[in-house]
Amino acid sequence: MKALNLLENSGDRTSGARLAAINEAWQQVLQDKISINIERGIPSLAQLALSQPLLNEPLSGEYIDADGTDSRNYGQQQGLPVIRALFSPFMGVPADQIVAHGSSSLALMYDTVSWAVRHGVPGDHLPWSEVKDATFICIVPGYDRHFAICEEFGLKMMAVPMLEDGPDMVTVENICRQYPNVKGIWCVPKYSNPTGTVYSDKVIDALASMKTAASDFRIFWDNAYCAHPLADSDRTIASIYEACVRHGNPDRVFIYASTSKMTLPGAGVAFMGASCTNTTWWLRHAAVRSVGPDKINQLRQVRFLKSPENIRALMAQHRQLLRPKFELIDDIFSEVLGCQQHVSWTRPEGGYFVSLHVLPGTASRIVQLAAEAGVRFARPGSCYPYGCDDRDAQLRIAPSWPEKEPLSLALTVIAVCIAKATAEKLL
Amino acid sequence: MKALNLLENSGDRTSGARLAAINEAWQQVLQDKISINIERGIPSLAQLALSQPLLNEPLSGEYIDADGTDSRNYGQQQGLPVIRALFSPFMGVPADQIVAHGSSSLALMYDTVSWAVRHGVPGDHLPWSEVKDATFICIVPGYDRHFAICEEFGLKMMAVPMLEDGPDMVTVENICRQYPNVKGIWCVPKYSNPTGTVYSDKVIDALASMKTAASDFRIFWDNAYCAHPLADSDRTIASIYEACVRHGNPDRVFIYASTSKMTLPGAGVAFMGASCTNTTWWLRHAAVRSVGPDKINQLRQVRFLKSPENIRALMAQHRQLLRPKFELIDDIFSEVLGCQQHVSWTRPEGGYFVSLHVLPGTASRIVQLAAEAGVRFARPGSCYPYGCDDRDAQLRIAPSWPEKEPLSLALTVIAVCIAKATAEKLL
Repeated sequence: MKALNLLENSGDRTSGARLAAINEAWQQVLQDKISINIERGIPSLAQLALSQPLLNEPLSGEYIDADGTDSRNYGQQQGLPVIRALFSPFMGVPADQIVAHGSSSLALMYDTVSWAVRHGVPGDHLPWSEVKDATFICIVPGYDRHFAICEEFGLKMMAVPMLEDGPDMVTVENICRQYPNVKGIWCVPKYSNPTGTVYSDKVIDALASMKTAASDFRIFWDNAYCAHPLADSDRTIASIYEACVRHGNPDRVFIYASTSKMTLPGAGVAFMGASCTNTTWWLRHAAVRSVGPDKINQLRQVRFLKSPENIRALMAQHRQLLRPKFELIDDIFSEVLGCQQHVSWTRPEGGYFVSLHVLPGTASRIVQLAAEAGVRFARPGSCYPYGCDDRDAQLRIAPSWPEKEPLSLALTVIAVCIAKATAEKLL
Repeated sequence: MKALNLLENSGDRTSGARLAAINEAWQQVLQDKISINIERGIPSLAQLALSQPLLNEPLSGEYIDADGTDSRNYGQQQGLPVIRALFSPFMGVPADQIVAHGSSSLALMYDTVSWAVRHGVPGDHLPWSEVKDATFICIVPGYDRHFAICEEFGLKMMAVPMLEDGPDMVTVENICRQYPNVKGIWCVPKYSNPTGTVYSDKVIDALASMKTAASDFRIFWDNAYCAHPLADSDRTIASIYEACVRHGNPDRVFIYASTSKMTLPGAGVAFMGASCTNTTWWLRHAAVRSVGPDKINQLRQVRFLKSPENIRALMAQHRQLLRPKFELIDDIFSEVLGCQQHVSWTRPEGGYFVSLHVLPGTASRIVQLAAEAGVRFARPGSCYPYGCDDRDAQLRIAPSWPEKEPLSLALTVIAVCIAKATAEKLL
């Protein structure tokens, strides 16, 4: 941590002295020859260990569900009723309108977009592939994998800024009212990736009620962090589905969630919830793709997770492991960068990310410098459509994977890189 | 089995007496008020029990693969190397050109078609969606779910008959040589669904070497029954991939298999194997859809299945359970229908189905009568593109699910229905 000492309070000094201190710190971090990856939100080994009973415990007893479905055999395209019921309160949709399918909610979003592009959403609507310039609203900074789906399907993207309580709804409403080719919006409504934003009830109501020129407009509601607080208490958001129903737009929203960051990433269960019309449409297309989901894993997960209360207790254990890492970001950055008016970062109440906002024109340089010093983190621009942040001013930090000591080293490197890139630009 | 006695040797009698016997038998089966479903190839409870250790045994020990992949975490889009290596001999493709992904090989086929339709196969080729009348060759009778994928993606279908040793290659070669819009063919090369046909080496060589007007022609090689004999010894077929390489067409084939009918249907592991070019292309698109497959289930399956020899021993146990059911079909049909020149059925050496060939114009009537008597089996025409068998002469029997006694009842009903429908048509 020598580099840190070199930089501390260097803001008080003359710019020449500060530059010298920064360069000394930079030489210091180069000598450490570390190799740390904080690019993506990957649960740590200690977090994985919380789900060890999923691996250790035999799946004994009954495999046949109340409706007669044998989890070991083919069928039940919609997934086990018992796990759909368990996730109903987290999704704000009745269990019989939820699909439990596969291990990746991203895959469920992908499939939904795929079918909307190829066949059109339910009702008398054109396939989006036949709509000139079919477009999605992308809140920025946002989640790169959402934007990648748009690119894959040739859907145009229109960036709208994230505000304190959700998307800039004035802009969203204007766009939706005017343009019939605007077909969808990506939302991570709670502890948003990467800003940590929690949508206010007002924003949720506005999304559910707004006029849209496209009668087949859809909200893709990726509630990935539905039970993932970092603060002592979890935030509660309004049910978008109930709001849509209340405003006479029941088919407007597809809601997604998964156990990926509750139990074992990649080996969990994913969920899609929507109106009956949407769910029926979804299942009809899913039936062409496969005979049904892996219900054995659903049975394992539901027996491990047990109840909403038990899920919340498990998430409290995750929080214990995650929160110190987020505190470390704030501590180190405050210490080194606190005096830098061009740098700010989020202090999220939940989720997996810190969004870092730096002097415009320095983000790419910071990532380049960090790579030289052995720290790999977000591709610059990755939180923007087409991977392009015009201002080159935003970066994402995912502190979950490394242990505290290497994380601390990585954050020091990043802080030095920020200081160096900022100084290079300003001085 | 009274109905059976009524019909036995009724072929020797006058047509009037025979009709009376048939109608008496029909009244008899109506009285039994059974409800049996032999529509699809679903493993029985006894077969599921063979995989009980998959459920009973904890997944302890090491979760990190030789290449550093932690099965519990995200990543490794291609699937665990150890399970790809296990299935390499069954697929005839090197392990590093195999993808292990999800639980449904049908889904992998669907995704491959989806990406070919949207983006085109690797190389400088048009997406199939931009090809006028892009067409697949469908061998008939064949597998309805293959045909459903074509329908879903708007691919036209051209039926070519199945012969004793595989597709009618004279016709296949003629079509492929002439029509650049013919882009693919569906093949189940071993114990084909529903005929049980095993492709000869000559047919496989012809498929690999034939001239195709379309340079982006692809064989979809669904080797669903790669290790699923009913006879004492398993048949061996040539490696289509090696044949394609030998003839300078390495990219021509996508090969699929799964553990669905080895371990737990729907909760197994699915595989796709192909050239490096095809596999790289496949993985690039898969990466947009998800962060990677469920590797925990892959680890469970590979620890249960252990080795190719162990897989073959497991399949011998399946065979013990399945073979008596197939023998029952032949016994009952021979007894009741042996004298009917208009009726024939296959005696497969492996797989899950018997193909039943009846007097043209009677298949739908037979299914309708069977439904009245409480036996649900194949939709008539389901083994043909668009669900339409112009001759109304073929049906599929899937005997795996019921126990021997109800199966025997169901087969008796079907035999009576065949006799009745044939008599109605002829007399």
